Amino acid sequence: MQFTVLGSGAGLPSKKRHTQSYILDAVDETNQYILIDAGEALQHRILHTSIKPSKVRSIFITHLHGDHIYGLPGFLSSRAHQGGEDLPLTIYGPKGLANWLDITFEISGSRLNYPLSIVEVGHKDCIEIDNFKVHVRLLDHNIDSFLYVFKENDKTGALDPDKLKGIGIEPGPLYAEIKKADVFEFNGETYRTSDFTGPDITGRKISVHGDTRVMAEPEYLSLIDRSDVIVHEATYLDGEQEKAHRYFHSEITSVLDNLKNIDYGALLITHLSNRYEDGFLNELAKELPSGVHLTHDFFEHPILRNSQENK
Amino acid sequence: MQFTVLGSGAGLPSKKRHTQSYILDAVDETNQYILIDAGEALQHRILHTSIKPSKVRSIFITHLHGDHIYGLPGFLSSRAHQGGEDLPLTIYGPKGLANWLDITFEISGSRLNYPLSIVEVGHKDCIEIDNFKVHVRLLDHNIDSFLYVFKENDKTGALDPDKLKGIGIEPGPLYAEIKKADVFEFNGETYRTSDFTGPDITGRKISVHGDTRVMAEPEYLSLIDRSDVIVHEATYLDGEQEKAHRYFHSEITSVLDNLKNIDYGALLITHLSNRYEDGFLNELAKELPSGVHLTHDFFEHPILRNSQENK
Repeated sequence: MQFTVLGSGAGLPSKKRHTQSYILDAVDETNQYILIDAGEALQHRILHTSIKPSKVRSIFITHLHGDHIYGLPGFLSSRAHQGGEDLPLTIYGPKGLANWLDITFEISGSRLNYPLSIVEVGHKDCIEIDNFKVHVRLLDHNIDSFLYVFKENDKTGALDPDKLKGIGIEPGPLYAEIKKADVFEFNGETYRTSDFTGPDITGRKISVHGDTRVMAEPEYLSLIDRSDVIVHEATYLDGEQEKAHRYFHSEITSVLDNLKNIDYGALLITHLSNRYEDGFLNELAKELPSGVHLTHDFFEHPILRNSQENK
Repeated sequence: MQFTVLGSGAGLPSKKRHTQSYILDAVDETNQYILIDAGEALQHRILHTSIKPSKVRSIFITHLHGDHIYGLPGFLSSRAHQGGEDLPLTIYGPKGLANWLDITFEISGSRLNYPLSIVEVGHKDCIEIDNFKVHVRLLDHNIDSFLYVFKENDKTGALDPDKLKGIGIEPGPLYAEIKKADVFEFNGETYRTSDFTGPDITGRKISVHGDTRVMAEPEYLSLIDRSDVIVHEATYLDGEQEKAHRYFHSEITSVLDNLKNIDYGALLITHLSNRYEDGFLNELAKELPSGVHLTHDFFEHPILRNSQENK
């Protein structure tokens, strides 16, 4: 699994930073990409990657500000001509999204050749998609803005060949049958499969924030605790906490402070204002704790199993 | 005056060709740009030019297909932060545009800090803007698609110093007063200014087509006759006239054939399908008559006075 930032900028695009879009690449696990947000020119960014729009089956929109959605109509229209024919797609996002897309497609005469579902989500919803449960949590912004916590389903542990050999079962086709069943019989005895498997493999957890002020509620912190990857905005990087608060955004030191009592594998800082120059960003990057990254467009981060324990 | 193609592609963007947008640069004449169409990532294209969004005071939308309008909300929103504060902007386009922009700005919480007027236009309208009359003509596409003929206002010819010297007036401050008036007095005699000026300077004419089939109506051809620049789509470049007709588009040889009995300075071919490769385009370009150009993104064409006579 891999997390890719397609657009890392805030508000206005620059030559280097497009507005917000991310890809959660679960192709190895489910042959699918999950797209989060769709800033303008998302489809142009995708042209410079190996991402196949047809394999995007779920889109999560954090909030409806233009820098997070103006690329959605173009992406959806083009996907129809990029191998997406007949391949269903579901968009999850705040109320208002369905009406806007309907009107946009109606006036522009766009007809999609694949089934599109739009699901308007709310605070504390839990969405099930292939191999993930996605927890939705309202953040603190000037319009409804959501955190999406993607929790990969746990996997049953592997069979332990030593234990199976202990009761006389050598590796062979029987293993597959045992693995599928809760109980199995051998030589007249009945066994529970769980006594012969290793511990469950915990699914990975990726917490992606929409625009927000820093949030200190314990219930929220507990929800994102032990994330393998946290994606958080920091529109302000230079200590302007008050200004960040006034504009319903975050400042980087407050973000780091706020997360210091929870565990995580990596923290990806996004939604960087275009007013910061490379020199400043490079200096700042050197001072950040290990595992905290200032992202850029096309930034890629592999999501390892239990990466929070590798910290 | 100069015409710049910001997006020369059809339907889907490619790495090289964005979807449709053009700039008519009238900065030398009126300190303004006129934007025609607004494909997605228009604002990203502008970042690579010297164009100031604040100086765009008029936008003309040929038709509402996504590849011509999906960049409009982003451009309008960003213009507010790019020096456009308080500087009015008017958009001319087909019915439906105002409602779509209203809903788009409403759901995305966008507030512009400059006055925006949206004027929905129709067949045979004539719009007056600074230094231009713009004639609107319905084309032949599967939704309402317009031709805009930008006719620069004629200018009064220059004063002829030889004629003025003939009645005893030497060059001096009086010349400016004479030029402003229809009649003037000198040594007790009354003269008509027009008897002392050269012929009127004909304004330039730029005819920009939205997507269309080739149109043979004499009234249409007469409207675009003697254009300094004609901008016409040719989604098909390889003789597929029937297919072009079926999809309400044009094929290049039909375009050239259709325009062979009118005068024009230059013909800019746009809306090129991304399926054509550079090799094919280069070969085709060599075979085209002088003055006919296959355009690309960032293609620039100076618009000279009376350029149709320089042919």
